[in-house]
Amino acid sequence: MAEAVKSIANLVCPTPMPVRDTVLLGHGSGGTLSAALIREVFLPAFQNPVLGRLDDQAIVQVNGSRLAFTTDSFVVKPLFFPGGDIGSLAVHGTINDLAMGGAKPLFLSAAFILEEGLPMDMLRRIAQSMRDAAQAAGVLIVTGDTKVVERGSGDQLFINTAGIGLVPDGVDLSASRACPGDVVLVSGTIGDHGIAILAQREGLEFDSRMESDSAPLHVLVSEMLATGAEIRCMRDPTRGGVSSTLNEIAQTSKVGIELVEREIPVREEVRGACEMLGLDPLYVANEGKLIAIVAPESASAVLSAMQRNALGKNARIIGKVCEAHPGLVTMRTDLGTSRIVDMLAGDQLPRIC
Amino acid sequence: MAEAVKSIANLVCPTPMPVRDTVLLGHGSGGTLSAALIREVFLPAFQNPVLGRLDDQAIVQVNGSRLAFTTDSFVVKPLFFPGGDIGSLAVHGTINDLAMGGAKPLFLSAAFILEEGLPMDMLRRIAQSMRDAAQAAGVLIVTGDTKVVERGSGDQLFINTAGIGLVPDGVDLSASRACPGDVVLVSGTIGDHGIAILAQREGLEFDSRMESDSAPLHVLVSEMLATGAEIRCMRDPTRGGVSSTLNEIAQTSKVGIELVEREIPVREEVRGACEMLGLDPLYVANEGKLIAIVAPESASAVLSAMQRNALGKNARIIGKVCEAHPGLVTMRTDLGTSRIVDMLAGDQLPRIC
Repeated sequence: MAEAVKSIANLVCPTPMPVRDTVLLGHGSGGTLSAALIREVFLPAFQNPVLGRLDDQAIVQVNGSRLAFTTDSFVVKPLFFPGGDIGSLAVHGTINDLAMGGAKPLFLSAAFILEEGLPMDMLRRIAQSMRDAAQAAGVLIVTGDTKVVERGSGDQLFINTAGIGLVPDGVDLSASRACPGDVVLVSGTIGDHGIAILAQREGLEFDSRMESDSAPLHVLVSEMLATGAEIRCMRDPTRGGVSSTLNEIAQTSKVGIELVEREIPVREEVRGACEMLGLDPLYVANEGKLIAIVAPESASAVLSAMQRNALGKNARIIGKVCEAHPGLVTMRTDLGTSRIVDMLAGDQLPRIC
Repeated sequence: MAEAVKSIANLVCPTPMPVRDTVLLGHGSGGTLSAALIREVFLPAFQNPVLGRLDDQAIVQVNGSRLAFTTDSFVVKPLFFPGGDIGSLAVHGTINDLAMGGAKPLFLSAAFILEEGLPMDMLRRIAQSMRDAAQAAGVLIVTGDTKVVERGSGDQLFINTAGIGLVPDGVDLSASRACPGDVVLVSGTIGDHGIAILAQREGLEFDSRMESDSAPLHVLVSEMLATGAEIRCMRDPTRGGVSSTLNEIAQTSKVGIELVEREIPVREEVRGACEMLGLDPLYVANEGKLIAIVAPESASAVLSAMQRNALGKNARIIGKVCEAHPGLVTMRTDLGTSRIVDMLAGDQLPRIC
């Protein structure tokens, strides 16, 4: 246990500022290094208006229909964890990226990179788990690919899923649409996924079992949209946690965001684990939660709709959008002070998804 | 050189029959082991009519449009090779999978799994190469993802691209549509990609430079379709080569296929390299060639259309579809004998794409 705490403390120590000539683990963290990589390498190369929106999904026009299109690779370690496995996570993650654009998820692809020597039974279990997750969510896995790399050139199994969804008429969600006065909602307790993975990976024992919140959010989203409320933007706060998601929205919309610490729902056991490990739940990954930015007059209708769905029963209003400090997220703490909530720097927890 | 030949001889030796309890390199070869993996693990898990067609792309209905959707991960080694790199290959490969369904490729996703320590300049060069390939082909990279794994848990860089295309009205290509009497065409010389990768990887020196044929085939395909000819099916013979592609078509359509050895175009230098290394060009990967199965009355029109395009200038009729020996591919050799052309067993050349 002492060993585990030490190894985690190492992870949390800020990495030195980005050495720009090699890839660091932190470039995959979803925080400032990831943002720098996108800004400095991928955007200059691929620059086009659709990609430039930097939402979790591209919205493209095909033959008069608005399609959402997204991709995600999954490298989570370990492959199996309380509340899910890499297979269900790969299905939920891509469904959620589609749903955050307001799209009805329709079709997924599944591409596997296997390391030579992977037990076939493990692959069978994971494929089965993907099937179950897709079936439960009402999406079809329609195309796939398998590659095998030599022992030592991979790590058991990586999965990529891409997804296609259909965006209903009138729906227009984007991280660029937050306005001063808007309300910030979260659909439930934060940090559950990251702490579950960490506990499993490091063999930590807690009084209560930590479980990932991995879940498909598209039905919750469709119920929120059905209220007809003015929803500006939705995001699932995965890698980098709530802090990174809100910082991205604040920067993209050029607005400030003010959180109220005591309103942010965190499970007692997750709060305890975070305190013990020196982690801030705002930076810990979620896989079954969403953040919504909603016009003030719509907030209560959207909140009620969320709370009626099992995946939103702990939904809360956690803050608001303001004109002050554009691009910055701040938080009124329980002590009554205010602090800046930065984007994650370096790598807090590598390979969390 | 002797060393290289020995190591290649090892690769070519048939692996023992599939040990069914772990993943082997050959499960990624595109041959019999790949087919067994799909048949025994993925199809039973994901079973649905779209996936069950086992074409290179799924054709799905969205809002009245027929979309092609496909995914491919690229693990080629080395990352840079004569005629291309992993970036251009990842763009061409997915464009070609869409094109083989008759679709006009529209949008690509790009997902990167980076190994910690990858030189940033290498990533920049590869992103640039993807951009150039996409731009030249008229497709947009609209969404992406980046993950980073620890040193030793990956191998520099893996790329997944998924793609969306639009299938024009009236186009219906599938490996299940070959009929006895149909003609088999190939768009040019075979084996170029596999031999170029192998030469680069093993440091083999030949009199002339071996170059990958990696190229986007969608314009060639659209020109073939524009003839209005009865084209049953198109496939790009990548991993597993022409033999595996034709075996798949023969099995899916429950027909026999008869090739004529002297009609199969192979560059002199590729033929020489294959002879020296004990490889059969029919099993070597291509990345800029297609196989078309065409109704007999349409063959000459399609052949002429192919030969007018630079990527099809060496196109040839190489065989025909027959009623005899359904599921089997045979070849009339230069010696006048006939032999069975099996699907690739084991792994001839791992990590070729």
